[in-house]
Amino acid sequence: MEVISKQKQLRQRRSEALQPVGLVPTMGYLHEGHLSLIRRARQECKTVVVSIYVNPLQFGPNEDFEHYPRDLERDLSLAQEAGADWVFAPTPEEMLPRPLVTQVMVNELTDRLCGASRPGHFDGVATVVTQLFNLIQPDRAYFGLKDAQQVAVIQRMVEDLHMPVIIVPCPTLREPDGLAMSSRNVYLSPTERQRALILNRALQEATKRWEAGEWEKGEEAAAYLADMITSEAGVTLDYAEVLTYPDLEPVESFDQSKAVLAAVAARVGSTRLIDNRIWQREE
Amino acid sequence: MEVISKQKQLRQRRSEALQPVGLVPTMGYLHEGHLSLIRRARQECKTVVVSIYVNPLQFGPNEDFEHYPRDLERDLSLAQEAGADWVFAPTPEEMLPRPLVTQVMVNELTDRLCGASRPGHFDGVATVVTQLFNLIQPDRAYFGLKDAQQVAVIQRMVEDLHMPVIIVPCPTLREPDGLAMSSRNVYLSPTERQRALILNRALQEATKRWEAGEWEKGEEAAAYLADMITSEAGVTLDYAEVLTYPDLEPVESFDQSKAVLAAVAARVGSTRLIDNRIWQREE
Repeated sequence: MEVISKQKQLRQRRSEALQPVGLVPTMGYLHEGHLSLIRRARQECKTVVVSIYVNPLQFGPNEDFEHYPRDLERDLSLAQEAGADWVFAPTPEEMLPRPLVTQVMVNELTDRLCGASRPGHFDGVATVVTQLFNLIQPDRAYFGLKDAQQVAVIQRMVEDLHMPVIIVPCPTLREPDGLAMSSRNVYLSPTERQRALILNRALQEATKRWEAGEWEKGEEAAAYLADMITSEAGVTLDYAEVLTYPDLEPVESFDQSKAVLAAVAARVGSTRLIDNRIWQREE
Repeated sequence: MEVISKQKQLRQRRSEALQPVGLVPTMGYLHEGHLSLIRRARQECKTVVVSIYVNPLQFGPNEDFEHYPRDLERDLSLAQEAGADWVFAPTPEEMLPRPLVTQVMVNELTDRLCGASRPGHFDGVATVVTQLFNLIQPDRAYFGLKDAQQVAVIQRMVEDLHMPVIIVPCPTLREPDGLAMSSRNVYLSPTERQRALILNRALQEATKRWEAGEWEKGEEAAAYLADMITSEAGVTLDYAEVLTYPDLEPVESFDQSKAVLAAVAARVGSTRLIDNRIWQREE
């Protein structure tokens, strides 16, 4: 496995790469969720690139950019084990040699859910993903559905701008007790770790009720999720919403919506966590 | 020469194309200025692609999108003569199968000059150029310096987003009497055509004074240009500005600014025309 930090070296390697090229963009501190994306890319591509870059553009001024967990040594050995051919790990100076004036904005899809709580977050995501796509020119790019809104935003950006890449959404991986894997889980104290289980538990219960046809509208399901999460001590609800997927519109009737996203975000102590389910009727 | 209207066919051809691939993006109604770009691309590239697409995104609600001159038959034969291998002429439905929610914005550079008179214009330009770059994947792209701000915006976008393309700025071509070539010149009546010469004449006179070192600051040169254009009957000044190039900042001192853009825009009758000079001290 080769570790690349410079654009120039990356362009050189890319020009000689076997195709298809698969990209797994990450912010590092890899967990099983990331490794499952790398393994999937390994199955489908001749060249597998993992990018490791904590993107300053997608953090708000009061967010955890400075403290976001980093461990490059460990990441490199995990990426290699999972089958990466190259890791692209640029410095911020390499990615942003001068202040950006260009922004890629995906409107509408980004004003709700995490976009409402984190203004500018998805502009930062769309911009850095565009940068990485332009640098690496992948044929396929792998994203985890834990960030379902991110997948919807990127998929729409790719379609709107006719980017020559296929987006491959991959299932969320979970700890044995059901907590969605996230690099931010390391922030949790043992007590918070237990409390955090409410996100998955609420989604699990809501899924049963949806399957049983208990609700007509998305907002009934959202209210159920909100109640259940709010009732957990030490957990502050950020949002609970049930929207069509991937267009993120209100669900007027479950019977008429093919795919629906049930998404929740909450603060456990000072750690913000998200989780979701995609509910899909069989045709 | 092959005429391509569909994305799918374009992708197919692109995958087999000899490289480097050169792109000349146009809105059609080709004149000698466009043809000089095509000829330059022919000299430097193995595959020359001309795109012809009147981009609705870059027209304001009260602008001339509907009436912008179009003549595809004539364009095709001119492009072929000048050496194009393919003309990509998509329909609006092919480029915009559904309403865009994604936008590429280049801030700062786009709030002055034509950006101030035409809000949203450069977002539309940046977005369609990104679409065309993603569809055609050119190694080199050719733009005329008549639209000097456009060149600065695109060059900055390419750098910021690390797009894998080299931007080649090409000199403005002029009619024998000095009028900068533009597809919009067909709108001019014979009287207006004469009046329009003031733009080039003012720039020519200002260039002499700049060469003679008459001015210290950009705004003195700008005031001279404004006076001269305003004094012409039937011509309404939109702006006259002298800014650093390509950063488009005020010129505090000509001695300290390497390259400077003297840019003017005016309405002649109901037709909006632009022209400019780039002033550059030899090192």
